[in-house]
Amino acid sequence: MQRERGMEALGPGTYRLYGVGIATTAAVVGPKEGRGPLGGYFDRVWPDDEHGQATFEAAELALATEAATVAVERAGLEWEQVEAVLGGDLLDQLITTNFAGRAHGRPLLGVFAACASFTEALGLGACLIAGGGPRTVLAMAASHHYAAERQFRFPTELGYQRLPTASWTATAAGATVLTADVPPGGLIVEAVTFGRVVDYGQKNPNDMGSAMAPAAADTILRHLQATGQRPGDFDRIVTGDLGAVGVPLAAEAARRSGTEIAPVLDDCGLLLYDRDDEDVHNGGSGAGCSAAVFNAYLATRLLGGSWRHLLLAATGALFSPTTYRQGESIPGICHAVEIRRG
Amino acid sequence: MQRERGMEALGPGTYRLYGVGIATTAAVVGPKEGRGPLGGYFDRVWPDDEHGQATFEAAELALATEAATVAVERAGLEWEQVEAVLGGDLLDQLITTNFAGRAHGRPLLGVFAACASFTEALGLGACLIAGGGPRTVLAMAASHHYAAERQFRFPTELGYQRLPTASWTATAAGATVLTADVPPGGLIVEAVTFGRVVDYGQKNPNDMGSAMAPAAADTILRHLQATGQRPGDFDRIVTGDLGAVGVPLAAEAARRSGTEIAPVLDDCGLLLYDRDDEDVHNGGSGAGCSAAVFNAYLATRLLGGSWRHLLLAATGALFSPTTYRQGESIPGICHAVEIRRG
Repeated sequence: MQRERGMEALGPGTYRLYGVGIATTAAVVGPKEGRGPLGGYFDRVWPDDEHGQATFEAAELALATEAATVAVERAGLEWEQVEAVLGGDLLDQLITTNFAGRAHGRPLLGVFAACASFTEALGLGACLIAGGGPRTVLAMAASHHYAAERQFRFPTELGYQRLPTASWTATAAGATVLTADVPPGGLIVEAVTFGRVVDYGQKNPNDMGSAMAPAAADTILRHLQATGQRPGDFDRIVTGDLGAVGVPLAAEAARRSGTEIAPVLDDCGLLLYDRDDEDVHNGGSGAGCSAAVFNAYLATRLLGGSWRHLLLAATGALFSPTTYRQGESIPGICHAVEIRRG
Repeated sequence: MQRERGMEALGPGTYRLYGVGIATTAAVVGPKEGRGPLGGYFDRVWPDDEHGQATFEAAELALATEAATVAVERAGLEWEQVEAVLGGDLLDQLITTNFAGRAHGRPLLGVFAACASFTEALGLGACLIAGGGPRTVLAMAASHHYAAERQFRFPTELGYQRLPTASWTATAAGATVLTADVPPGGLIVEAVTFGRVVDYGQKNPNDMGSAMAPAAADTILRHLQATGQRPGDFDRIVTGDLGAVGVPLAAEAARRSGTEIAPVLDDCGLLLYDRDDEDVHNGGSGAGCSAAVFNAYLATRLLGGSWRHLLLAATGALFSPTTYRQGESIPGICHAVEIRRG
């Protein structure tokens, strides 16, 4: 099915898109993620966290590259046919995304919204296609638990015993091939809402769920209002990594604005691990969390017929070890992408 | 003048844009930048590097916020009328861009291409408008010398004596209000080329000009080829921060491909400082360098009538202190935006 591409502003940051579909998805994860309830959905599960790489950073790069390559090959494409790559990760200066670009050599647009980077990439890529630009775009994001842990957490007051509200950064990567050649019966990107920074003054990096929940509610409510939909119009509204602490807070924030989202609300971070898995506590997080859960589990549920309509609202906590030490709060952001089976 | 918005792919990563103009530009810089040859072009020059802020990071945030605010106010806009902000900076986890978003509260798309972040933001923002999305977008980028210095350079082998090939990260911020209401006789964004990562294996963080020159040549040549133009069709092709070392290398790389760009080639990093100013060496660099030079000097030259047609090709060196210590090379990227006076 071919339909004319187009893009229409429904409100600040919310755009209706026409003529953008999803060609393929792929996700590759580490062993802990493979042991979780979604283990059977991932394309590849690494047997260990390094998988032969010399550093955790090199492992994150290999993980991201593998997910992207599976998505591109599954679409029957050569890399040369990918017109643009949009991607993000958590490492300083976006080194995973940029070094992956060294290998694929395609026009690269690096994005950063912390753990919401995947939906920023997916949403922007979909806008570029809808607007009449590229016809084939790869959106990707990745994180590696041990690369993130040593960059973010050891320099903070966390110490080595993880707090019950702390999240577990996922070793996970996901990639989506977006296309102007919307596949019949496939997934369609219907609309996006780009988030704004919301700050309730939370300063605890061991409780990111609380820090991000207001931003999640803000973006979800803005999306519903701008598109004229109710929560019940979706099979699921799935946040990125609010976790056990953040999901009820986001639902409560929406409820205070008069909208009940709890019945359809779920969270990639809650879906990814068994809750009794060691040290997971609040749930999964990281740029790769929503990327892998969407590109494996959520896309499969949509394509398999049990669901038809999804709002993927990945969430990001905006801080650095420097800002934390300087006493800054941790604002949140949430970018949402609405997807429907055609 | 109103014309229909649109976007057309001319090649991988190169897009012709219709109906996108520049409403206003603004730039704010530190004292060293104010003493340079472009001092009279900047909207504000800070008397000192902190300007009352408690940290260099807070100073960078204040600088970015000031440039953005001047651009928005000059356009006669309230912040609420800005439909999206695209921005980037060099600090870990893009904290300047994200914390600026906390204050303005507009839908925020963080981008990262190191010192090419400004043209990534400008180019992507222009695509969103051309594609039929927002009508008013702010693109911005910033850097602060001392915030960058302590994040990037002190942990490396640089020591304290700066090498002759080292660049000076600018304390500078620039912002552009992009609009679908193209101003009569104003500046038009005609086309963009998004760059690919190019790596010649350079590993010296004190010689970023050499590291980025191949990427600059790659993007400039791709842009010329895809748009069917010659270097002489432009009054200037201006790179971001190749500096004294990188500019001749980029010209030589283009020459080897049969295209002579040297007669129209200039560089924001070379324009920003007096060459005999202490410690500048290779020239200015940083995400704020091209942002401030474009939004002050280059835009003024275009509007003032002496030039009419510019290719702004900001350049970024892709590395982090971690990748440097792990022995990785420093690839480059360059995103180009073509601007014409209407």
